[in-house]
Amino acid sequence: MTSSFKGPKPSRRQFLAGAAVIGAGAAAGARAATPDPLITEVQPWAQGLGEGVDATPYGLPIKFEQDVVRRNVPWLTADPISSINFTPIHALDGTITPQGCAFERHHSGAIELSKDDYRLMINGLVDRPLVFTYADLERFPREQHVYFCECAANTGMEWAGAQLNGAQFTHGMIHNMEYTGVPLRTLLNEAGIQTEGKWVYVEGADASSNGRSIPLEKALDDVLVAFKANGEALRKEHGYPVRLVVPGWEGNMWVKWLRRIEVTDQAVESREETSKYTDTLADGTSRKWTWVMDAKSVVTSPSPQAPIKHGTGPLVITGLAWSGHGKITRVDVSIDGGKTWQEARLASESGNKALARFYLDINWDGSEMLLQSRAMDETGYVQPTKKQLREVRGLNSVYHNNCIQTWHVKSNGEAENVEVS
Amino acid sequence: MTSSFKGPKPSRRQFLAGAAVIGAGAAAGARAATPDPLITEVQPWAQGLGEGVDATPYGLPIKFEQDVVRRNVPWLTADPISSINFTPIHALDGTITPQGCAFERHHSGAIELSKDDYRLMINGLVDRPLVFTYADLERFPREQHVYFCECAANTGMEWAGAQLNGAQFTHGMIHNMEYTGVPLRTLLNEAGIQTEGKWVYVEGADASSNGRSIPLEKALDDVLVAFKANGEALRKEHGYPVRLVVPGWEGNMWVKWLRRIEVTDQAVESREETSKYTDTLADGTSRKWTWVMDAKSVVTSPSPQAPIKHGTGPLVITGLAWSGHGKITRVDVSIDGGKTWQEARLASESGNKALARFYLDINWDGSEMLLQSRAMDETGYVQPTKKQLREVRGLNSVYHNNCIQTWHVKSNGEAENVEVS
Repeated sequence: MTSSFKGPKPSRRQFLAGAAVIGAGAAAGARAATPDPLITEVQPWAQGLGEGVDATPYGLPIKFEQDVVRRNVPWLTADPISSINFTPIHALDGTITPQGCAFERHHSGAIELSKDDYRLMINGLVDRPLVFTYADLERFPREQHVYFCECAANTGMEWAGAQLNGAQFTHGMIHNMEYTGVPLRTLLNEAGIQTEGKWVYVEGADASSNGRSIPLEKALDDVLVAFKANGEALRKEHGYPVRLVVPGWEGNMWVKWLRRIEVTDQAVESREETSKYTDTLADGTSRKWTWVMDAKSVVTSPSPQAPIKHGTGPLVITGLAWSGHGKITRVDVSIDGGKTWQEARLASESGNKALARFYLDINWDGSEMLLQSRAMDETGYVQPTKKQLREVRGLNSVYHNNCIQTWHVKSNGEAENVEVS
Repeated sequence: MTSSFKGPKPSRRQFLAGAAVIGAGAAAGARAATPDPLITEVQPWAQGLGEGVDATPYGLPIKFEQDVVRRNVPWLTADPISSINFTPIHALDGTITPQGCAFERHHSGAIELSKDDYRLMINGLVDRPLVFTYADLERFPREQHVYFCECAANTGMEWAGAQLNGAQFTHGMIHNMEYTGVPLRTLLNEAGIQTEGKWVYVEGADASSNGRSIPLEKALDDVLVAFKANGEALRKEHGYPVRLVVPGWEGNMWVKWLRRIEVTDQAVESREETSKYTDTLADGTSRKWTWVMDAKSVVTSPSPQAPIKHGTGPLVITGLAWSGHGKITRVDVSIDGGKTWQEARLASESGNKALARFYLDINWDGSEMLLQSRAMDETGYVQPTKKQLREVRGLNSVYHNNCIQTWHVKSNGEAENVEVS
């Protein structure tokens, strides 16, 4: 077998005018004009030995990716124990979020609770109050589903106008994992729900307890008592050993370190569902309730933290879309601030209440862009503009903002968070 | 709202006879006889504050899970640089494998190669030899798919009889991730394949180069030049920044640190596809070629590393199934060494060339079991017994063993790797 190095031959197939042609003269592009030592010389990593298989029993990302981490916003997260950080969605692709960089929100910090010390109580309006150990839970039939989890406050700062300069910060209170667990209905049926039971009140084992009321209809539908995420045990910061998964509903209801489920005849109206996580409307009254996260999307690249560095020509525009009502059926992308739209390509058929990845492949001429994306879900709901949302809900809320996001991409490839009227 | 603690009330709904009943007397079971301080007393983790959101910008598993790691087998992996470790599949659930505990196989160790230093050459029988930078690759239209990657030597030691006592070691040279990348056909079309081109020869940037020949038909079908796995960058040990993904085919062809793709008119017949990764048959000749990983399955729990600890009663039997030919359509489980079979439940519709998770929920009476699973794929192929395989392929090979595995589960819940005739 011999290598067949040849000179350039113009081809209509050529996609990247800038891709180097081996052995080409200056006419074929600047990069091809001088030999590239990364091609022509044997490199150090091709001569010595690399790391062995006993080096990292559990691995971490390579050092070159050390910027792809959860980040908080100092002015927003003055108290890091009872606060939030953000998934680096600008640097990810695909749909799965690794646990290690999936956003965290705690109300009294992430606690360390062993399986041996774990207990789950079901009480209240049940025939048979029960306490389960972790080993008990492992004996019930399990299910698996990929679901997104979005904090109700995701994009919340943007109600007041464009504030946070990066998709990680405007939209990074979201993650998407494959959960394994026992359906909550299985455990509730084991306890036997009494006729008067209409709600469950769920609590965590941390000091905040983060109690929330969930209508029985949802509790008996698709709620999971989960102990695995993306194949492995939940991480400490995601509720080890057991968390609640409440598909499509706001993240605050996904109680971590799940301790107790009480069947009740009415909503408890706890702190977390009245003074917090409630939308204050223009007239000062509260919207009751806002549990489902409506259809939403965001362009993750290009974006302020992911500028275009390669100049004009082929450009991959990509982002995420999701809906708490089910599947994403369509995503449109605009490069002119919403005047005209092009249908984006979904990387695969959207899951139910799971992140979908979209792409629009364009040939960028270097003009400024006002980049937007707009999601539609299987109910026919279309993601609204911020103007449309404000008309209905006013400006008082910091929760449940699912409006269309705009990035202003400049000719030099840098991007900024802006609002278009 | 008041809690309604009540005494026990016998119910036909009761699934776990051992689950503690709140406030019950001794009659309801040993655990209920004495108050459980984990229920009745406020615990330390419910009083103090936990860890804040800036504690782990990139998180690792909780300390209680420190045994769920990649492991090698000292007598098998004398040289850890050029060797293998195993995914802890006995302790995982679901289908996604986190990169951090996904098995590694290197031929000269895992190298550290930056995106800036990365180059991919396409040469040989092409109209236009090309060199791509990492940034170039990011400009082509991307795809996403979940695929399993199995080393051809997975379960290889078992050809000679039951040897390795644990699903991690018998079947753990496998992982399953969501890949994002550019179809190889896109890059080959960019270069322009000449009429004589029938194969591609692919090489990595490490010292071993691990060169392999792939027929052009496969290269133009579903092979990906991938740069993301499970949403984030490939880890160093998985080929950062770019690896080849060859769906359904043996892991050795999934070249890491992908450096060069040469279009050739015939197979190179390199070391890695002749003296290695080739099945030596009973008569001493070699089977040519064995690329596709046939349908296979294994019970991951209970298994030697995951014994039954809870005694008799409800038991979840679970495992993994996969096929290099497409989707898994059915998995059967036997508890009597293959005399009788029960159809297991698939956790979700099987992906194409991806791991499927199966469950069989039984009521275990404490009898000894000879536990087996048997996969069937969409082509109608049924996973064979070891006896059937040996009849066809003899005993000389260490590659491509996809036979039915048997665990001997004893009355005390412990399990051992055994063969049944």
